[in-house]
Amino acid sequence: MKLFNYTNIDDAYNRIKDLVLKTPLISNENINNLTGAKVFFKFENLQWTGSFKLRGASNKISLLNKEQKNIGVVAFSSGNHAQAVSYASRLNNISATIVMPANAPFIKKNNTKKYGAKVILYDPQKEVREEIANNIAKKEGKILIKPYDDEDIIAGQGTAGKEIADELIKIDIIPDIYLCCCGGGGLIAGTSTYLKHKFPNIKSYSVEPEKFNDTQISLEKDKISSLIKEEHSICDALLAKKPGSITFPINKRTLNGGLTVSDIEVKKTIIKLAENLKIITEPGGAVAAAALLNNKIEIKNKIIVVMISGGNIDNKIFDEILNEK
Amino acid sequence: MKLFNYTNIDDAYNRIKDLVLKTPLISNENINNLTGAKVFFKFENLQWTGSFKLRGASNKISLLNKEQKNIGVVAFSSGNHAQAVSYASRLNNISATIVMPANAPFIKKNNTKKYGAKVILYDPQKEVREEIANNIAKKEGKILIKPYDDEDIIAGQGTAGKEIADELIKIDIIPDIYLCCCGGGGLIAGTSTYLKHKFPNIKSYSVEPEKFNDTQISLEKDKISSLIKEEHSICDALLAKKPGSITFPINKRTLNGGLTVSDIEVKKTIIKLAENLKIITEPGGAVAAAALLNNKIEIKNKIIVVMISGGNIDNKIFDEILNEK
Repeated sequence: MKLFNYTNIDDAYNRIKDLVLKTPLISNENINNLTGAKVFFKFENLQWTGSFKLRGASNKISLLNKEQKNIGVVAFSSGNHAQAVSYASRLNNISATIVMPANAPFIKKNNTKKYGAKVILYDPQKEVREEIANNIAKKEGKILIKPYDDEDIIAGQGTAGKEIADELIKIDIIPDIYLCCCGGGGLIAGTSTYLKHKFPNIKSYSVEPEKFNDTQISLEKDKISSLIKEEHSICDALLAKKPGSITFPINKRTLNGGLTVSDIEVKKTIIKLAENLKIITEPGGAVAAAALLNNKIEIKNKIIVVMISGGNIDNKIFDEILNEK
Repeated sequence: MKLFNYTNIDDAYNRIKDLVLKTPLISNENINNLTGAKVFFKFENLQWTGSFKLRGASNKISLLNKEQKNIGVVAFSSGNHAQAVSYASRLNNISATIVMPANAPFIKKNNTKKYGAKVILYDPQKEVREEIANNIAKKEGKILIKPYDDEDIIAGQGTAGKEIADELIKIDIIPDIYLCCCGGGGLIAGTSTYLKHKFPNIKSYSVEPEKFNDTQISLEKDKISSLIKEEHSICDALLAKKPGSITFPINKRTLNGGLTVSDIEVKKTIIKLAENLKIITEPGGAVAAAALLNNKIEIKNKIIVVMISGGNIDNKIFDEILNEK
């Protein structure tokens, strides 16, 4: 089998380019002055459904055959993949069943239902979502749309990297560093593959919440390692405890290391992004920017690409963050 | 003298295109479903300094001669023009003095100082800012950078319209309707001129806060008319009581009518834009979207361009709006 590479992403792009928003890549003078770097933010929070997840879901669903489409799909997700699968299914007239944690943000549960999927809530303390989803898939013959550990999903998410590369090449910019959030690792696997192809000297880093740094540890140990302790983070989209068996080998090839940020750093970053960039980000969507703004890496005079991956945050939480300041 | 037309804007664009951000034009499926229209939002809130005003200020300052630059500039503004003049002056190494109302939003006063201008606050109940600024200009020989009633300012703001037109033409879209906020009328004069040039059948409408509808009334009476009563609106950027003597004749040629929105409609719109588009807008920046979302005009099945003109809102006010819901 051929190794996953940029051609998977080019193919995915041709499949989905009319199904997703080409999101803006934005540089901001306040942030450049603040950091002493030239920073380009990729605004995937502006993507339809409020996160990059629509790219992977659209690619996977585009590849289903007629029979598979008739039977429908099932997925498990803390929220952004849920909304994406629900939205893409409606667009394709497919029935979708999504298994979500009962404590997912209201906005994510609500939108997933609004886009038309049947939502099954589970108790993340007692039940395992993969099992629930696998049982439905088996019993009803539905295709399981995995959140990240699938080359078609990774290729779809990677199309955000293709858009970044295309735009930078157009303005003759060669980036030095790429910072991207990492939960299961699908977005960073796809995007870093494409950026490395176009800019071979780029250094790419995963950014994770402090206590959910399974990819950082796995990169250091050079093998997939799981976190065991029960922990908490406001970054609800990035609570994976173990890198994917398909995403990790890709990330091992493309990444130069892993960084972590604290919840407090993330909250301060959400405020800075609101004040300077006028955008709303969710905690998981702001971790790469948090690494940038908290000197987690030497950035002075460098050209940096920062992924803003999502903006699905409950108004109440966004409020609380603005007020805590 | 030649009438102001699209060539003024093309010239301004060539002058300032590297000094301002080419802001994104974004369509969103949730909003399209909600309205039954195809809507393109121009995100000038993402513009450096947080509003479109940087375009006009950059154009005007680019046109100053060396001697004028040495002496420096003066401006009066409720806040967005202030930040823009301050920022563009720093970029050109020019000294700037800005006259601002003491009750302007904190973020606007703070940023204007941060960008380097000397800020003079006045009491809007007792003093007239034009007089203060004119006195400084006369006494110190400084050039007054007017907020809207100047063809170079209007041409600069019009470059946002050129970007909209270029992007729509690229994707073969011919818009039916253009909705844009209107304070003194500089932004709408410039942008509607350019859009009318590229799309002769487009219908353009000014949108004002309910009690500050001087342009609507002036369009109806076919002559410049002033509001007399003391009123209040949360749209701090749009409190002009009389159309400009240069902007109005242009707007009379290009506009099809005037619309108004209430403060409550604006607040609800700010929430809708945050939830669906993941952007932060200030009240004055959201009025055109408020007209769209509150059926102020027949939009079903139409292609609509909506200007989002600014995002400079104090966190505290944004908070209160999210909480009022």
